[in-house]
Amino acid sequence: MEASETRRRGRSGGGGAARRAERTAVRIEAARYIERNIPNFEVLTAEAIEIIETNADTILAEIGVVFSENPAALDLWREAGAEIEGERVRLPRGLARKLCATAPSQYTQHARNPERSVVVGGRNMVCAPVYGPPFVHDAMGGRRYATIEDFRNFVKLGYMSKWLHHSGGTVCEPTDIAVNKRHFDMLLAHMTLSDKPFMGSVTEPSRAADSVEMCEILFGKEFVAENTVMTSLVNINSPLTFDVTMMGALETYARANQACILSPFIVGGAMAPVTVAGTLTQVLAEVMAGVAYSQLVRPGAPIVAGAFVTSIDMNSGAPTFGTPEAALITYGAGQLMRRLGLPYRSAGSFCGSKLPDAQAAYETANSLNMGLLAGVNFMLHSCGWLEGGLVSSYEKFVLDADQLGVLHNLARGIDLSENGQAMDALAEVGPGGHFLGCAHTHANFKDAFWRTEIFDYKPYETWSDEGSRDSQTLASARVAKLLAEYQAPPIDAATSEALADYVARRKASMPDAFG
Amino acid sequence: MEASETRRRGRSGGGGAARRAERTAVRIEAARYIERNIPNFEVLTAEAIEIIETNADTILAEIGVVFSENPAALDLWREAGAEIEGERVRLPRGLARKLCATAPSQYTQHARNPERSVVVGGRNMVCAPVYGPPFVHDAMGGRRYATIEDFRNFVKLGYMSKWLHHSGGTVCEPTDIAVNKRHFDMLLAHMTLSDKPFMGSVTEPSRAADSVEMCEILFGKEFVAENTVMTSLVNINSPLTFDVTMMGALETYARANQACILSPFIVGGAMAPVTVAGTLTQVLAEVMAGVAYSQLVRPGAPIVAGAFVTSIDMNSGAPTFGTPEAALITYGAGQLMRRLGLPYRSAGSFCGSKLPDAQAAYETANSLNMGLLAGVNFMLHSCGWLEGGLVSSYEKFVLDADQLGVLHNLARGIDLSENGQAMDALAEVGPGGHFLGCAHTHANFKDAFWRTEIFDYKPYETWSDEGSRDSQTLASARVAKLLAEYQAPPIDAATSEALADYVARRKASMPDAFG
Repeated sequence: MEASETRRRGRSGGGGAARRAERTAVRIEAARYIERNIPNFEVLTAEAIEIIETNADTILAEIGVVFSENPAALDLWREAGAEIEGERVRLPRGLARKLCATAPSQYTQHARNPERSVVVGGRNMVCAPVYGPPFVHDAMGGRRYATIEDFRNFVKLGYMSKWLHHSGGTVCEPTDIAVNKRHFDMLLAHMTLSDKPFMGSVTEPSRAADSVEMCEILFGKEFVAENTVMTSLVNINSPLTFDVTMMGALETYARANQACILSPFIVGGAMAPVTVAGTLTQVLAEVMAGVAYSQLVRPGAPIVAGAFVTSIDMNSGAPTFGTPEAALITYGAGQLMRRLGLPYRSAGSFCGSKLPDAQAAYETANSLNMGLLAGVNFMLHSCGWLEGGLVSSYEKFVLDADQLGVLHNLARGIDLSENGQAMDALAEVGPGGHFLGCAHTHANFKDAFWRTEIFDYKPYETWSDEGSRDSQTLASARVAKLLAEYQAPPIDAATSEALADYVARRKASMPDAFG
Repeated sequence: MEASETRRRGRSGGGGAARRAERTAVRIEAARYIERNIPNFEVLTAEAIEIIETNADTILAEIGVVFSENPAALDLWREAGAEIEGERVRLPRGLARKLCATAPSQYTQHARNPERSVVVGGRNMVCAPVYGPPFVHDAMGGRRYATIEDFRNFVKLGYMSKWLHHSGGTVCEPTDIAVNKRHFDMLLAHMTLSDKPFMGSVTEPSRAADSVEMCEILFGKEFVAENTVMTSLVNINSPLTFDVTMMGALETYARANQACILSPFIVGGAMAPVTVAGTLTQVLAEVMAGVAYSQLVRPGAPIVAGAFVTSIDMNSGAPTFGTPEAALITYGAGQLMRRLGLPYRSAGSFCGSKLPDAQAAYETANSLNMGLLAGVNFMLHSCGWLEGGLVSSYEKFVLDADQLGVLHNLARGIDLSENGQAMDALAEVGPGGHFLGCAHTHANFKDAFWRTEIFDYKPYETWSDEGSRDSQTLASARVAKLLAEYQAPPIDAATSEALADYVARRKASMPDAFG
């Protein structure tokens, strides 16, 4: 994994013509990923960690996990020393942790534009957009089923967002395309409308294989064999169940040395115990079993340990977001995953609100802040999530993406250079003066503070004269501006044609399947 | 300070009749204060702390601070060993820190209802509402000058808010009352419409003295002499200046053993250097000088070390809120204040938005989260702040107050009892089951998760049928409900009359002064 990073890829989206085009094209400013110079926030004491780790081992040894409809997986487990009873797999204490050790602590996911490649793990955080909603929402059109046009719009918005590092996967479900063909159009959009890294399909093992094939066209077959070019999302069916579809995708990707995020998907009180410590224990057991399995399939396969956790409204059964219980789990899980030496996925722009209003923003800000401080390495859903994940919101996408800039600057930590200490400025200004005109301020003000691209700080009268716009309205204007200014990143014409041909041919070869 | 906590006060808002009334009155649920079972988040390394503390001492020794129009203060400083030049006070290295040592690390602020008394310091956080806005805003009436009716409404809302521990001070400026008489009506409202602790007037030393007198009526003279019953806000004129009005209020309160928050009021880049480390250095120097001065006035006087810090929009000069730079300063200042052994005031429901919209909520949530994690002990402005502090917002008051509940549950940390570990539940449910019906969930679900009193988690169709209400609309409904349900806490009739008489007499004795 690490060694291959130094190798240059063969096709990189094309030859000299493409590179010349790249030099002359409009440059989109993009942060590569967040590099933390601040500590992680840790809520578990050493004693708490020991309790939870011991309990997780007890779960794996005594309760076990289920690998359903997957005899090959059971064979692998049996060989590795697990006890098999039907589809139930029980792991002797310590086995799962030992098997996890071959998973890399960090890996590079290559983008077709090398400047956009990301390093997942360590003290980094990579931000990817919302994943999975069947609906979209915008201020003008309200809530409606998502189409491939929406999908392409969100990929464009992601490409234009400075603080978003990753193009994501199913930014919304293109419901106007047959279920068995969507992945072709989705991947084609990520590959051609953006040059940021992206995710592959997981809804069938065969679609994972298609994703690898398309990457081979984009990056070159040899490059893909030697490098990770996709990070895909594999959910665990909590509690303690690994279904054959998701595991099939995992197996396909692991064999191809492509990365997967292995995530329990937990609504606390429903798929896990109603307590924080109980949920942490279950999450750890599930992640250890899943990661161990990925390493049985291919030792060294890159994998991200996930924890998607929400709490539940016990009146309605609805999942709730931005809650303190989810925060405690996210902080604690970060510690547990770091002790496993694995990159950690959690947090996101989570909210339950139907609109990009104050509720949505409180919930989201709670979650984004905890994501940064919890040491998350891959933050899926980092922008655009609305209504419990049922909806991709245009306005919230750009509002959240703006807030990711806050996380970047917070992660920078405190500059203690002589310039940072500013003792000259303090001496120059002295008691009762002001710093607006001093030399130090002039030299530093451009980069001193994070700047929003949406929020309003104008005087009340100006704001009122301009129509008293709320942040949803300001966000709508930004969405329109970004989509109007969008220009596709350059791509080699032959590669582009080969991708389009592949998609057309494959789609023509199969009947439409819906649902 | 500490010793007097065990003494019971004489009048406590009345005798047996009042106590009987209290027993039969509607009970308002109220959390006492936040008790942290989670660590503080610390961004400064030991080396960074040493640099900043050394630099702060350099500022005090070489640049000095100004105590303007205050010859008595200069005399106190001269006696203590400072070097005086005009109004400039230069402190030998180490002197300020040494003088700070007599300030208590925590103190109890008594409320007239003993159940509402708060302990400021240690691992606690006390939340008080917004302070100072000349305007109010609600969804129906928009933005307008605040009146005493608004003031009383905000005191009532504060009383009704479970997660708000403190009634605050100038929850809005009652602009329909003469400037020189407002403090009487404001204090009367806090004393009679709520039974939570409150703040005194600081706009003139004489008004601080009036505040003490009114407390003597409410609590009894002897009780006030021996106990702290007010925590009031004294701002430093950053950079490095202590004006005679604010210091006069501080002197009055310190002599009466009443607490003050001593806070630099800093818009970064204007009143302090544009860098985080430079601002931290100035904040530390200012706080040390101010706290040291309070201890010269009365050793042992309770004092809270503050840091009100925002960044600035370098285009418009407007202050900005919820920014990463302010967060780094707030985290760092917490460490510096704890090393001084002082309770720490910072953070709040800060935002620049004109409306309680997504911008307001992102900014506020960023600040509330950092307040909890930074180890803040007294969070002024913890709800209701809008438009850079120009406006007290009805809707935002209840929205923010709801979010304070999130902080309470986050601060509780993780329960690692046998019940918290939930191993029985995990064994009972097993792979593929669900936890909704298990015994452990039934036993725990009522207290397991924080519950909003405003946010909407209903299914889309229900929400749509109910009018597609955004969170501002839901908040308006909650404001109306709380004000309609409000009942004043019981108070002894004689005390109530004595307070009203005092206010009427004092107001009649002076001409109206506006502005």
